Amino acid sequence: MHISFWGRKMDTKFENVYLDNAATTMHKPDCVIEAVVNAMRTMGNAGRTSNKGAMDSGRIIFDTRLKLAQLFNADGPAQVVFTKNSTEALNIAIKGLFNKGDHLISTVMEHNSVLRPIYAIEKEQEVSHTFIGTDKKGRLLIDDIEKNIKSNTKALIVTHASNLSGNVNDLYTIGEIAKKNELLFIVDASQTAGAYPIDMKKMNIDVLCWTGHKGLFGPQGTGGLCVRKGVDIRPFTQGGTGVQSYLEEQPAEMPVRLEAGTLNAHGIAGLNAAITFIHDTGIDNIHKREICLLNRFRDGLKSLDMVSFYGDYDTDERTAIAAINIADYDSGEVSDELEHRFGISTRPGAHCAPLMHKAFGTVEQGIVRFSFSYFNTEDEVDYAIEAIRKLCLE
Amino acid sequence: MHISFWGRKMDTKFENVYLDNAATTMHKPDCVIEAVVNAMRTMGNAGRTSNKGAMDSGRIIFDTRLKLAQLFNADGPAQVVFTKNSTEALNIAIKGLFNKGDHLISTVMEHNSVLRPIYAIEKEQEVSHTFIGTDKKGRLLIDDIEKNIKSNTKALIVTHASNLSGNVNDLYTIGEIAKKNELLFIVDASQTAGAYPIDMKKMNIDVLCWTGHKGLFGPQGTGGLCVRKGVDIRPFTQGGTGVQSYLEEQPAEMPVRLEAGTLNAHGIAGLNAAITFIHDTGIDNIHKREICLLNRFRDGLKSLDMVSFYGDYDTDERTAIAAINIADYDSGEVSDELEHRFGISTRPGAHCAPLMHKAFGTVEQGIVRFSFSYFNTEDEVDYAIEAIRKLCLE
Repeated sequence: MHISFWGRKMDTKFENVYLDNAATTMHKPDCVIEAVVNAMRTMGNAGRTSNKGAMDSGRIIFDTRLKLAQLFNADGPAQVVFTKNSTEALNIAIKGLFNKGDHLISTVMEHNSVLRPIYAIEKEQEVSHTFIGTDKKGRLLIDDIEKNIKSNTKALIVTHASNLSGNVNDLYTIGEIAKKNELLFIVDASQTAGAYPIDMKKMNIDVLCWTGHKGLFGPQGTGGLCVRKGVDIRPFTQGGTGVQSYLEEQPAEMPVRLEAGTLNAHGIAGLNAAITFIHDTGIDNIHKREICLLNRFRDGLKSLDMVSFYGDYDTDERTAIAAINIADYDSGEVSDELEHRFGISTRPGAHCAPLMHKAFGTVEQGIVRFSFSYFNTEDEVDYAIEAIRKLCLE
Repeated sequence: MHISFWGRKMDTKFENVYLDNAATTMHKPDCVIEAVVNAMRTMGNAGRTSNKGAMDSGRIIFDTRLKLAQLFNADGPAQVVFTKNSTEALNIAIKGLFNKGDHLISTVMEHNSVLRPIYAIEKEQEVSHTFIGTDKKGRLLIDDIEKNIKSNTKALIVTHASNLSGNVNDLYTIGEIAKKNELLFIVDASQTAGAYPIDMKKMNIDVLCWTGHKGLFGPQGTGGLCVRKGVDIRPFTQGGTGVQSYLEEQPAEMPVRLEAGTLNAHGIAGLNAAITFIHDTGIDNIHKREICLLNRFRDGLKSLDMVSFYGDYDTDERTAIAAINIADYDSGEVSDELEHRFGISTRPGAHCAPLMHKAFGTVEQGIVRFSFSYFNTEDEVDYAIEAIRKLCLE
């Protein structure tokens, strides 16, 4: 392989093949863009006043809460809180539920959006933690969870799917463990919301954190958390709520307890259209299509000994991520070569998942992540296979 | 006056006259909407990787930091932090700068986005406060600031303009007081950013908090804070930063120290276009135009004894808000009548400014707020005058 990026003439039949959908889905359904445009032309600031613009804004926000509650089988629209992204949702949950001396169990599969808040509450609130490991294929050692429950363990915090390997955790089983041991179950669904079925009730999930701009096909600047009724999270931000303005504290009622200031109604309007698109298309169909593209990609590279895959690909119960390396080439160099020579957009490096890299032994090399969307095509996949073949055979 | 809202036939020559621009500007320049659409079709997730979508996203974010730094005369692009709204920016500043035993000085003119975080740190961090009052016209008693400085006073937190009365505070004078007494100067520019000149250096501002969806004509879901170099604010959220992923803490470098997770690049792209629009139009021209509409409105109502104005209107150094009541009618009923009979959108009630209402004696009645934008017309103003006349004379 000859790495020769920057300045070589592009050898590509596509202008750009975007395979970084686990970071953000670039192709949004047209209805999403139209909804944002319409919102930006007509919507005011929702806030319990009855002027037309404010009501239009309030209605779409409420309707989106309703749709999200249905999508995730949550406890109704009032338990759906909007944030700017899943990181904020995870900070709200992780910082608002624990007290000094508590212990929590999480996993090495987590993103820094989970790990760093856990480290922060260790320092600030003296909340200790245990991280459950994985096997060589990056599969969570679920049996280790119960072994690590202590008398002061309050919660399990688990990602639905690794953003690095695409491995999906069995939330039914983990939810049962949480229920049996009376632990709160907090789930990071950043990689699955919209792309993989989630049922808060059947999975015994207490707090589900999600983002709008990935599998949900919504605009950036949208995300949130769904909170089971009866789970009280301390307010993370304080500010205007449009209700009980003479109260010095954030009001007790949900969702304003966890929301302060002007919501991103323009983005939420787009998210609303996106959820309708997902509902009409069917999550199962979206998942099947994405896995079909992933399997095609994997099959196309099977014969190449230089290509290593990280993760468990012997199941369709995963997300459409292919985490690979080519021999011992630096992942950044490979990703740059794919981008600049072939116009193929992937993501290299650490992926904000430091413990997963330690488990895979890829701290130095990083990993090249290909992540597929419902809107990618077989042609694009074949072209990516061809590009990797060329790199390997040069 | 006969209040007869809900169900009466509309008596209006406009479909809707939107005069709630202090809540959110509804009319966005076309270039803003076009920029958001373009971003939603082409942008990835900025994050120090070099794929095309990510680079496009990273470039527009950086360029917007640059433009904001120029607009506010801040300490360069790295000191511009993006948040979802000004409430989040204010929470970051107020919760990240004080230590146990500190004292701060703020004002009764503040919004709950300032007051509630101040109450929160009183409870959680034992930080005490003094609120400076106003005269009958709602003008800040600036001379009272120095009288209330204690040995443990660390900062002044002052709104640039009241969201209720539109009164503007003289930040040059207050900034001098802060400088002389070696206090941090934190400013809430939610009501002025984009609509009124701000110069962080000349005004001695250490932290400027602003929102994108009001005077800046940007999309909802955008806002931020500009931080003077050398002022260290503790991270408020922890998460992925795309840099230093193996660090357990949020990195020390700005702006990622105060940003975690995916930024709203779609919204920021719109904000970028909006700032260009403001730059090309000229803030002074925007301010003049808005004040012209406000003065026209006020002149048109001068002869009506039933109409009371709250605030200081004997100066053009204010924002384009008219805060009124009609006799002792409930502000909510008046606002509803204006909306449902005349199609005029205003905002009644408490406006999340409880201490300002206490100062004006309008806790029960609330206030009807008319707020004008650069895009409102003289015709709309005249129509609003006519509508209020009708209500008064019935």
